[in-house]
Amino acid sequence: MSIKIGILGYGNLGRGIECAIKQNVDMELVAVFTRRSPETVTILTQGARVYHIDDVEKMKNEIDVLILCGGSATDLPVQTPKYAEMFNVVDSFDTHANIPTHFDAVDAISKKAGKVSIISVGWDPGMFSLNRLYANAILPQGCDYTFWGKGVSQGHSDAIRRVEGVKKGKQYTIPVDSALEAVRNGKNPELTTRQKHIRECFIVPDEGADTAKIEHEIKTMPNYFSDYDTTVHFISEDEFNANHTGIPHGGFVFRSGKTGWNEENSHIIEYSLKLDSNPEFTSSVLICYARAAYRLSREGQVGCKTVFDIAPAYLSPKSGEELRKHML
Amino acid sequence: MSIKIGILGYGNLGRGIECAIKQNVDMELVAVFTRRSPETVTILTQGARVYHIDDVEKMKNEIDVLILCGGSATDLPVQTPKYAEMFNVVDSFDTHANIPTHFDAVDAISKKAGKVSIISVGWDPGMFSLNRLYANAILPQGCDYTFWGKGVSQGHSDAIRRVEGVKKGKQYTIPVDSALEAVRNGKNPELTTRQKHIRECFIVPDEGADTAKIEHEIKTMPNYFSDYDTTVHFISEDEFNANHTGIPHGGFVFRSGKTGWNEENSHIIEYSLKLDSNPEFTSSVLICYARAAYRLSREGQVGCKTVFDIAPAYLSPKSGEELRKHML
Repeated sequence: MSIKIGILGYGNLGRGIECAIKQNVDMELVAVFTRRSPETVTILTQGARVYHIDDVEKMKNEIDVLILCGGSATDLPVQTPKYAEMFNVVDSFDTHANIPTHFDAVDAISKKAGKVSIISVGWDPGMFSLNRLYANAILPQGCDYTFWGKGVSQGHSDAIRRVEGVKKGKQYTIPVDSALEAVRNGKNPELTTRQKHIRECFIVPDEGADTAKIEHEIKTMPNYFSDYDTTVHFISEDEFNANHTGIPHGGFVFRSGKTGWNEENSHIIEYSLKLDSNPEFTSSVLICYARAAYRLSREGQVGCKTVFDIAPAYLSPKSGEELRKHML
Repeated sequence: MSIKIGILGYGNLGRGIECAIKQNVDMELVAVFTRRSPETVTILTQGARVYHIDDVEKMKNEIDVLILCGGSATDLPVQTPKYAEMFNVVDSFDTHANIPTHFDAVDAISKKAGKVSIISVGWDPGMFSLNRLYANAILPQGCDYTFWGKGVSQGHSDAIRRVEGVKKGKQYTIPVDSALEAVRNGKNPELTTRQKHIRECFIVPDEGADTAKIEHEIKTMPNYFSDYDTTVHFISEDEFNANHTGIPHGGFVFRSGKTGWNEENSHIIEYSLKLDSNPEFTSSVLICYARAAYRLSREGQVGCKTVFDIAPAYLSPKSGEELRKHML
């Protein structure tokens, strides 16, 4: 009997979930819920249905876990508490500063409803957080470093597209190689914002636009670019469409620590991701935690969890016996 | 109130545990148990006591978790089941092929005794296993790679020391750079034993020994060296003592996988360790799982667990609230 999944929101993340379900034989996509007119949305999975988001409650008894694929800015703060009342839910809420508030809201509702919810699932927050926790527990004396990229920052790409004269734009965040090497070699450097990442922009200007003005405006944009070394490339629309439509991302989490009676020995723990598709990888993590939510719920657990609260074995379709035999 | 720890076996690993306890303020070393005469063993921790191993049962009510620091070949298969009857225990049993048998034996005893045991804790098995599990769950379609080193292989060092004419010897296992790069770049290479690792030996020969004969004997030694490209260096005892008395180790775990409706996107997950001291790092992992064993036992759980069965939050001294606020 497979785990019945519902997807709420059919953008890049929702489509990623659909692809991930195809790779997991114990999962089944039952329904996609959308704010659009359902008849205008074509999904890939034979046998699954598309409903308007207003009809989600009617499917309460036909879905084991509802995966919420909205955005963290305005969708999830409303949707996760709302749907946690009816379903086991998983979300990828990634506004780090607001996680405690979001957790408390969702926890209270899930407990009352007798459901399991898992929030802030993905790679950061998510796999990166796990690696920070494990590495900090193992090496209490040490320094943490997180680098992002090379990859597309959605927020920065949006910001450059708001500049006058920009037709299309994409921004890549790139870790500074020498900073990575210094950390990897245990030098425990103190790094400024500028020393950690560079920003590279690829822009298709409007016809006749003042490219010098665009470049200046981007490079001096407060919060987004002024604290970084930024490179701006103006390219043709053909080149943009050929080389800059993907959504790659990734990054590095380091813990550099000391052990020994006098802390004389050094250790480096490094975790890194190189992802062709940020939303598809995030979806692949979400689907593992949907499996965990289903199992925890079947065990009678309730309330809100994060990746910190879930034993790794819950993520795998394999039995404890198989895992011990083949992966330990 | 701190967690009261006992150490059984005071070799490199036992001393590592002692150092790790010093770094964890919620932990306290109560006693070290040794096969030697207790009065011949000097430990570093003020206030902790040294007992003969035969006296361990008398300390049953004064120790929360007993950490077993014996070897996997002959000590742990006997010791872990034996002491699991009296204590919550943690071990670093690392004979991969025998883990299922060891697990079953320890599980039955721990359940009967109402205790928690956690076996095969360290980095491989341990953190490497965790990374294999997480990465396989996230990317069901893909390839796994594990590389070890650069580091000292105890078994291979022992093997070269058994060769006639060798006074002192140390063997380093080193991953082949081009193989690492091929995996990192998503090429999914099929690698032979020889293509994955090289072996480098540093030897102090007995006076007048036939070094050509030693080198030949090492390089052609079945199981240990004949399937590898091996380099043998003859050095002075001074150089050996200056540069080759440490026990560094480390390695890399990769998962290279595909996502997308037609598996058109590639992803690389990489986890790596660079360790100055293999036993001290292993000890640092063991102490985290001792904390978990203590907490699980207080919750009323019983039986044998592995790293797969333990939610990450149990490893950290921080509260769930703190973890969500600062590490998620």
